[in-house]
Amino acid sequence: MREAERADWAAIWPFFREIVRAGETYAYEPDMSEEEARALWMVGPPGRTTVAEAADGAVAGTANMYANRPGRGSHVASASFMVDPRSWARGVGRALGEDMIAWARRVGFRAIQFNAVVETNERAVALWRSLGFDVVGTVPEAFNHPEHGYVGLHVMHRRL
Amino acid sequence: MREAERADWAAIWPFFREIVRAGETYAYEPDMSEEEARALWMVGPPGRTTVAEAADGAVAGTANMYANRPGRGSHVASASFMVDPRSWARGVGRALGEDMIAWARRVGFRAIQFNAVVETNERAVALWRSLGFDVVGTVPEAFNHPEHGYVGLHVMHRRL
Repeated sequence: MREAERADWAAIWPFFREIVRAGETYAYEPDMSEEEARALWMVGPPGRTTVAEAADGAVAGTANMYANRPGRGSHVASASFMVDPRSWARGVGRALGEDMIAWARRVGFRAIQFNAVVETNERAVALWRSLGFDVVGTVPEAFNHPEHGYVGLHVMHRRL
Repeated sequence: MREAERADWAAIWPFFREIVRAGETYAYEPDMSEEEARALWMVGPPGRTTVAEAADGAVAGTANMYANRPGRGSHVASASFMVDPRSWARGVGRALGEDMIAWARRVGFRAIQFNAVVETNERAVALWRSLGFDVVGTVPEAFNHPEHGYVGLHVMHRRL
C-alpha cells in the first residue's frame, strides 16, 4: 500500500477502463475519456489516492478518498475502489479498505459513507460488512446492471 | 411556476445565501462565492432550473433537477429546492415539488432520489412524504446542524 503518484495512472487506466466498460459496479459515464477518468480518480489533497502493489511491484488496485460532502457534511468520508480483475481474491480490496479506514480515522473524520454499492456486487458488500460497514438503506432499482437489469444501490456506513 | 432565466439569479441569490449561511438544510460550502453558487444552482439542459413566482411576480422559490448519477444510474432523477423564508408556508415548496415530479416523469426518469434531506427539516420531510416519497434509509449523524448538533440525513425515494 502506498500513495499514488502521477506516473501510476498509466497502470490504473487499463483496468479502470475495463471495469467501467463492464458496467457492473460503477455508475460512471461509460464513454469517459482517459483525461476525464484521470481527473475523476487521481484526487489530490485534502483527498488522497492510493495504490496496492502486487509482489512483483505491479499496481493491483487503487482507491481514492475524500469528504463525502462539503460544509456541514464534511466530517463524513467516502471512497471508491478498483481492483484489477487479474488480482481478485488476493486480499487487495481488503488492504485498500483497511488503509482507507485508517486514513479517515487519522485525518479526523467521524464516519465513512459509501453512497452507491451495487447490491449484486456481493464480493464488495461482503468485504465492507466484514470491515464494519452496515447497509443503512437500499435505493431500489437505482442501477441498470447489464446482466441483472435494475438492481438496488446500497448506502453503506461505518462509524470511526 | 416557470423555467428560470439567467436574469432570475439576482432574485435567487439573496435567499440562497441566507439559507446556506443559516446552515440548517444544505451541506454546501458555507463561504461559497456568488459565482460558485450560480454555477451550482443554474443548471442547464439536460437538467433544468425553475422558479416559483409570488402573486406580485417576485421569485418566491427555486428548484433545480438533473440525473442523480451518470451512466447506469441515469434513470433516477434528483433535485434541490430553496424557498425564500419570507414565502414559507404558502405552498411554494409543494408547487416546486409537484412540477419537478411532473418534469421527471415527462423526461422519462423511472424514479426520484433525494440524497441528503436533513432529518430535523421536518417541513421538507413532511412535504416529500405527502408527495409520495419514502425514507429509504437515514445516515446517522451525517449533518452538523448549528443548533441540534449531529443529525441524520435521509435518503428519500419515489418511483414514477
